[in-house]
Amino acid sequence: MARRRRISNEFELIERHFAPLAVEPGAFGLTDDAAVLTPPTGHQIVVTSDCLVADVHFRTVDDPMDIAAKLLRVNLSDLAAMGANPHAYTMAAALPDTIDEDWIGRFAAGLAADQARFAVALVGGDTVSTPGALTLTVTAFGFVPDGEALLRSTARAGDDIYVSGTLGDAALGLRYLKDDLASLDATTGAALADRYFKPRPRLELGSRLAPLATAAIDVSDGLVADLGHICHASRLDATITASAVPLSPEAGAAISLHSGLATIPLTGGDDYELVFCAPPDAAQAIADLAREIAVPVTIIGTMRSGTGQVDVVDGAGRPVTLDTTGYRHF
Amino acid sequence: MARRRRISNEFELIERHFAPLAVEPGAFGLTDDAAVLTPPTGHQIVVTSDCLVADVHFRTVDDPMDIAAKLLRVNLSDLAAMGANPHAYTMAAALPDTIDEDWIGRFAAGLAADQARFAVALVGGDTVSTPGALTLTVTAFGFVPDGEALLRSTARAGDDIYVSGTLGDAALGLRYLKDDLASLDATTGAALADRYFKPRPRLELGSRLAPLATAAIDVSDGLVADLGHICHASRLDATITASAVPLSPEAGAAISLHSGLATIPLTGGDDYELVFCAPPDAAQAIADLAREIAVPVTIIGTMRSGTGQVDVVDGAGRPVTLDTTGYRHF
Repeated sequence: MARRRRISNEFELIERHFAPLAVEPGAFGLTDDAAVLTPPTGHQIVVTSDCLVADVHFRTVDDPMDIAAKLLRVNLSDLAAMGANPHAYTMAAALPDTIDEDWIGRFAAGLAADQARFAVALVGGDTVSTPGALTLTVTAFGFVPDGEALLRSTARAGDDIYVSGTLGDAALGLRYLKDDLASLDATTGAALADRYFKPRPRLELGSRLAPLATAAIDVSDGLVADLGHICHASRLDATITASAVPLSPEAGAAISLHSGLATIPLTGGDDYELVFCAPPDAAQAIADLAREIAVPVTIIGTMRSGTGQVDVVDGAGRPVTLDTTGYRHF
Repeated sequence: MARRRRISNEFELIERHFAPLAVEPGAFGLTDDAAVLTPPTGHQIVVTSDCLVADVHFRTVDDPMDIAAKLLRVNLSDLAAMGANPHAYTMAAALPDTIDEDWIGRFAAGLAADQARFAVALVGGDTVSTPGALTLTVTAFGFVPDGEALLRSTARAGDDIYVSGTLGDAALGLRYLKDDLASLDATTGAALADRYFKPRPRLELGSRLAPLATAAIDVSDGLVADLGHICHASRLDATITASAVPLSPEAGAAISLHSGLATIPLTGGDDYELVFCAPPDAAQAIADLAREIAVPVTIIGTMRSGTGQVDVVDGAGRPVTLDTTGYRHF
């Protein structure tokens, strides 16, 4: 029953599985030394890179389509946080010999589905063998009108602090997958796990916010940690109200069963929502935008002068203590 | 004597060792979600990505400065082969816990030295931990005037085939490092090993050739394999004369001791010289350019109509048989 097809040759692997993803003409079907990209007139290029390692950032047993989706979407989320429109990506894959062609085929199908969904194309990369863990690196490219990129360093005192969507779902989903939320019903658990597996990069929101917001970041390490990056870069403090942080019905159900998880929406990573700052006089335009594109946004606090600190308070203004401020990779 | 400093924290690691390399303003000191690059008016962006894995592409015991040089230069060589001027790069590093801060410091020093030498800057990336092998991915960016990129697919029948510099040195250097060339004197061996460790990307030659040559590639897999990529992409055959392939004095000395290695200049990889095609009426301009920038170039054969084949002949025009056409990664 040795049905597993070993990978015979780098060039054939690329031709069979990855060249069909190279739908941008400047990718030359992955047959040249490099790709050539042409930014629209009056635009800058936004570049971001994320590396996922088996059994660090995903589980080896995960569906290759889900791994592909996560790999691409964590990068697209960084483009969203810069206000950029995504265009293309390169991928470097270091493959252990436990990866067979069936796995690659399903992984490539996951990339293909997301390419269609997010209008991006593979334009280059590298495929090598490794004696170690499966390691996948995507570098993604987007375009933004000159000078409109949303930075972390340009928030202003008095700005409202917003988040998109709901927070905590992905971290609760991971706990459910690890059997830490055994009493949760399977439908709710699966919905949370889906948020963990399939980030939804807020690309349209990000690009439409570029002229409205003063600063933005995506929530990968956790709300408090990521808002802390804006505070640090902008040399400001933030105050957020814990009870204002929007929860999904599923996250609410999980937390009501396990009250010790109540701070997860503040500290759990992997949600890939946007946290952004905007002056109060932009509130109406932002509310109108949110309605138009059907992405909920919620004001959770205010920026004020300071030195880079995030204060979390309860509904009565009393400080909330957190046990950790986010996921750190070391 | 436990002097090894463990890596405490991803953010501190980046701030201490990698942020000082982010000398392009659009890198935002590596503190934002992504970098913003601004191509000069009338230019396209050239993008390439290479992944190096410990004990596959370099030896774990190699000097981290040499690993840094190789990592950056194999990418810059791809930009050279496209005729692009290098500008910036991102780097994703998956670090096993055997890598300590002293290693990182020396690796970053290697990047810094090459950044100065090749006028490029780190603009982003990712630093993660891995249970497996040290895995380093660089994605490099260059700019090329609109429409001037040197492709593999645009050689023409009748073109002369050129190579820059000398071939075979890197592959012979690797054999020397593996003690396969024990009878070679140490000075000659060290010179060959230096070619293996430190590719010399032919950036000025590549960018100056953009308006003169019809096609180009860099020699990473071996002359016959890489010229084969031009033939395949251009739907032409090539005939090259083995004795015309330029050798360094050191390669000549190694081959005179071990006649079985005589085909290494044709098949050995890692030289990172340019192979390029140009019409005979460009010969004088190319010779003048080579003299001006002090990079030797040698005509080794001719392109002709065909189906993608590379024929190697001896000085009398008789076919030369090769045991392998280049390095394959699987």
